[in-house]
Amino acid sequence: MNSRDQYIGIFDSGIGGLTVARSIMEKMPDENTIYFGDTAHLPYGTKSEKQIRDFAVNDVTFLNRFSLKALVIACNTADSVAREVLEEKFDLPIFGVIEPASRKAAHETKNNRIGIMATAATCRSGAYEKQIRKYNAEAEVFAQPCPLLVPLVENSRYKKDDPVVQIILKEYLAPLTEKEVDTIVLGCTHYPLLMDAICSIVPQINVISSSQAAADALYEGLSSGGMIREEKGGEHRYYVSDDAEHFHDNALIFMEKQLVGDVEQVSI
Amino acid sequence: MNSRDQYIGIFDSGIGGLTVARSIMEKMPDENTIYFGDTAHLPYGTKSEKQIRDFAVNDVTFLNRFSLKALVIACNTADSVAREVLEEKFDLPIFGVIEPASRKAAHETKNNRIGIMATAATCRSGAYEKQIRKYNAEAEVFAQPCPLLVPLVENSRYKKDDPVVQIILKEYLAPLTEKEVDTIVLGCTHYPLLMDAICSIVPQINVISSSQAAADALYEGLSSGGMIREEKGGEHRYYVSDDAEHFHDNALIFMEKQLVGDVEQVSI
Repeated sequence: MNSRDQYIGIFDSGIGGLTVARSIMEKMPDENTIYFGDTAHLPYGTKSEKQIRDFAVNDVTFLNRFSLKALVIACNTADSVAREVLEEKFDLPIFGVIEPASRKAAHETKNNRIGIMATAATCRSGAYEKQIRKYNAEAEVFAQPCPLLVPLVENSRYKKDDPVVQIILKEYLAPLTEKEVDTIVLGCTHYPLLMDAICSIVPQINVISSSQAAADALYEGLSSGGMIREEKGGEHRYYVSDDAEHFHDNALIFMEKQLVGDVEQVSI
Repeated sequence: MNSRDQYIGIFDSGIGGLTVARSIMEKMPDENTIYFGDTAHLPYGTKSEKQIRDFAVNDVTFLNRFSLKALVIACNTADSVAREVLEEKFDLPIFGVIEPASRKAAHETKNNRIGIMATAATCRSGAYEKQIRKYNAEAEVFAQPCPLLVPLVENSRYKKDDPVVQIILKEYLAPLTEKEVDTIVLGCTHYPLLMDAICSIVPQINVISSSQAAADALYEGLSSGGMIREEKGGEHRYYVSDDAEHFHDNALIFMEKQLVGDVEQVSI
């Protein structure tokens, strides 16, 4: 297999990472991708760091059975707590969601006040703050845990005219607007679906999707290494650790169209 | 050990089963109890039936290391899909949440129209409908999946004056009031906390807590077998499969007071 034709392996605790997969497919439609969703163990955001690291190692052990040219941690929680252990254990170019979105926020803020919306585990990890300060030592970072956004999105409640979405988002955004942030990072792969609703509440703030930033960074990385696939038409495979049909149905929310490619359940 | 002094083993996917434990402790304060919360794998309600059965067998295998006089499945999802496999594998008197609440609803309804509020998995299983019809063949049962109630309660949003709670509950209750049910079973151990909010929206409906019904049925079962403990002051132990501190803190929501007894993390 030509090394450019190898797969891009993408994993997440479940279905949210499909927003990253979707951004990758839109940016690089000819790449071969394998997505693994650890749906038997979701959500990671409420679990302990040790559990999340153990799950992530199992996820990548599965993906590594295939011939990979890059690995994408399409899960903010896993990227924030399991990245180091994955770099130690696997000899693969590893891309994530936190570094790209942090870099973009650090460069784009004008008043050096940046908000992070993420799960409790990602907020606790301090991973965004640490990355942002690498690129902008002046930046002040304010992390807001948003535990209800994942269940809302997974129940198709993300539209800006939904009163529940409005109430909950206003509560989560209030502490960030009080701190006068001019930039907010959506630090969870579910949140890009809430982009319109968030922008309707804080139109003056620059909102950065970590999923889009991850796809952009992967493109840069593959391009600079001459690893972009040249054949037309990428192949896409999906594997999950729990029920495949349920994943297939719910993928529609995140992809906003039917999945191209089969979904298979595997034991890891 | 006197057989009356043996433990009552109680398990749940996580923390919601504490409403059952609490009802048991209030009804039988002198019993020794061991609670196991499978917090590493929660929630069960979104998982496949096979996964839930595997988790439940592991949970009871752990509890069975102790000297038990009864097992309580304090999780509607596990009771609805894993009860049979537990009865096959373990030689223990097994009590659940579904049979007691179903029996109570079947007897108390006047118009034979009963609503069930539960997780998607419990609704799909049809377990309540099947049980209710055993006691009342005339009853019509209407199951309403309520996927957002667990995350709302776990984020301390269950009070009747919370506008989000009001909007979501009204949406879930509307199909049941349209069917003119006169009785509703709260078929998830998280939902007793929403009792006041639900009764404020549908004061004309008889709302039955499956947690309270489970404690009442256990009391009946132990009494009739002469197995109620006679010594004063029960001992209470708590075990979880993920972070103990997190469980201890969140237990406050469900017990409405600090836990008496330590919480220990174990690998299962």
